[in-house]
Amino acid sequence: MQLLSCQRGLLLASVIAGTSIDVIGADVDQKKCEAINQGINPIPEEAGLDELVRRHGGKCLLAIPRYEDAREVKDFIVIVPLFIDENCNPDYSILESAFRNLGKILKPGDLVVLETTVPPGNTDGRIRDWLEEESGLKLGQFYLAHSPERIMTGLSISRLREFPKIVGGADEESGRRALQLYSRFIPHIQLVSSARVAEFVKVIEGCYRDVNVALANELYKIAEELGIDFYEAREKANHQYCSIHLPSTGVGGHCIPVYPWFLVKEMERRERFEETRLLRTARELNDEMILYWVEKIILECLKIDKPFKDVKICLKGMTYREGVKGLYHSRNLALARMLRKKGLSVFVCDELLADNEIEYLGLKAKKPEDADIIFDCFSLRFGREEACAIKIGPSELSSQPLMKSC
Amino acid sequence: MQLLSCQRGLLLASVIAGTSIDVIGADVDQKKCEAINQGINPIPEEAGLDELVRRHGGKCLLAIPRYEDAREVKDFIVIVPLFIDENCNPDYSILESAFRNLGKILKPGDLVVLETTVPPGNTDGRIRDWLEEESGLKLGQFYLAHSPERIMTGLSISRLREFPKIVGGADEESGRRALQLYSRFIPHIQLVSSARVAEFVKVIEGCYRDVNVALANELYKIAEELGIDFYEAREKANHQYCSIHLPSTGVGGHCIPVYPWFLVKEMERRERFEETRLLRTARELNDEMILYWVEKIILECLKIDKPFKDVKICLKGMTYREGVKGLYHSRNLALARMLRKKGLSVFVCDELLADNEIEYLGLKAKKPEDADIIFDCFSLRFGREEACAIKIGPSELSSQPLMKSC
Repeated sequence: MQLLSCQRGLLLASVIAGTSIDVIGADVDQKKCEAINQGINPIPEEAGLDELVRRHGGKCLLAIPRYEDAREVKDFIVIVPLFIDENCNPDYSILESAFRNLGKILKPGDLVVLETTVPPGNTDGRIRDWLEEESGLKLGQFYLAHSPERIMTGLSISRLREFPKIVGGADEESGRRALQLYSRFIPHIQLVSSARVAEFVKVIEGCYRDVNVALANELYKIAEELGIDFYEAREKANHQYCSIHLPSTGVGGHCIPVYPWFLVKEMERRERFEETRLLRTARELNDEMILYWVEKIILECLKIDKPFKDVKICLKGMTYREGVKGLYHSRNLALARMLRKKGLSVFVCDELLADNEIEYLGLKAKKPEDADIIFDCFSLRFGREEACAIKIGPSELSSQPLMKSC
Repeated sequence: MQLLSCQRGLLLASVIAGTSIDVIGADVDQKKCEAINQGINPIPEEAGLDELVRRHGGKCLLAIPRYEDAREVKDFIVIVPLFIDENCNPDYSILESAFRNLGKILKPGDLVVLETTVPPGNTDGRIRDWLEEESGLKLGQFYLAHSPERIMTGLSISRLREFPKIVGGADEESGRRALQLYSRFIPHIQLVSSARVAEFVKVIEGCYRDVNVALANELYKIAEELGIDFYEAREKANHQYCSIHLPSTGVGGHCIPVYPWFLVKEMERRERFEETRLLRTARELNDEMILYWVEKIILECLKIDKPFKDVKICLKGMTYREGVKGLYHSRNLALARMLRKKGLSVFVCDELLADNEIEYLGLKAKKPEDADIIFDCFSLRFGREEACAIKIGPSELSSQPLMKSC
């Protein structure tokens, strides 16, 4: 088995190795491969991964930088990233390169499973085409399926072991074979009727989350305007039939803010502009939340008896999610940059980022103690100089449904 | 205790009587009062109500047509309807009349609790004003609180007994006294910090539902366009962190389609037009679903080898929700009327409506057997002449979260 892998490939590979199945992980980063083969885990923040890599790295989990060295493998699982471009259209270049390279070593009878979340129709569309073109084989001579990742950064190992996973084939036999393969190492695996359905399932999970975060953000703004404690109301409103999410500075990361565009752009290509209105509104609303927080922060500045430009603002938390060292589409970063652009005296701190990493982002790093105003981007709470010692962040946050998919 | 009551007041009154507390229910409908006092239940579709009314009607549950006859009562619970006008603004006339009349018999030390869902700020706003004006008393001399209904038509009795209920006071003492009162007959009652929070809690539950139905409707349309079985995908997408709702012809009834407007219109009054964009979009999307179904039905007509105007279309299900005899804001009724307006040969059937009731709506009643096309407004399934004997409606429907609040 081979994993054409970004970081997440290692997670699945380790879980597979943990069931004593030989697995080869391919990654272009040679240093990372060497570390894995020495039993050193390159993603220490993933609970349980240390032990798996230490125990299996270089043994039944083998990392290689060149996928061509995995020619004897029969089952391929591909997890490479899919980004969107500046117009929110998917940029297939990484996927195309991975599949065209894989196509070159594809043999009759091989099975290929895509785990990357893609717009519905791609597995049995361009991906099948790339494989057929490069291998000279036709679907039926090889097998192709989609089984979307359902992990959550930090808890990926337990998710893979405990959370239901689905798989759908480009044809019936592909679905059957992929189910068989995954049953060997995934306890809760279910077959759906097609790769397209499997693709859609993952994308709509993300859409549910994006729209519900947008709803929480909108309700939060209304509650503030009406003088109501949103968190108190939310706690009482939520029950088995109601799940109002938490407000935020927006939604970041590689997943949730990207998936709605998969559907929006596909429908636009089909001249169905009106039929993704809610997804688009939610997306815009989440992205525009930083405007709301800029206004709030400026109103806080008004309370400080100093010239406006001298009020020192500290933003706590720059990554796109608390506890995850990632900056992709981080709205906290966008908020900091927007404040700076307005000429405000803003600096940031983030326990996951070193000062030089913050400076690399074009921002100033300083301790919250030096600030006149502290805004915690994760808890959305304001603190002041004298409140710096106070641990900011409601216990509320820990009860947030954590399925953020990435 | 007195209940100034619409139908739902009887539900709460019966539950109170069931705990052996004397309760008086006031309703302008004299005949209904007489029936209740003879132990006859006017709402047979409510499970468990028959027995309560039979056992307590005319004894510890006394129905009266004139609230003035309840002068000795100390605790008042008000459940009268609040409608919206043609511009979606709340029409307070019924509430005003009820509270002004109640104000006239209010005595020092009395407690008034409003159960009707209202825009946040009303209990401690115009309602307090009406009571103060009519009674000559000030809050503090009497007590005022809000405890929103959380029942579901058909299952109201069990909801009152099992579902958590909240109460919030116009001031602290009012909250405390209302909590004390409700604790006598509601097992799960919680105090929130104000009447305004209690009002907001109920309204945002409805907003959550409306937005999530709109999301389901939008995802359904996308799935149809992409050739994906929405129901299969939804089943696999839903888990503890994802709750995609069911698609529909829209959202009807007195509650869900009304509550979002409470917030939208209040924010508009505050010149905050942009801050209810998601709620408004969801509302419009749900109301416009009938346009989508008109198109679908017309496409089905194309498959019939008859002149278009002669294709007999039967819509099954006219009420706003399956199993509930109510037509308020029924999108199914709106759909039937829209088809008729276009000149299509449409007739309807609904097991809860007699033929003359259907004709009263300006529609034709016929059996599905006579149709070329049958569209089931609840299950969204098409049937044909030959399929009439087939029970339409996926088992799916029974797994729908049923908290529709009304």
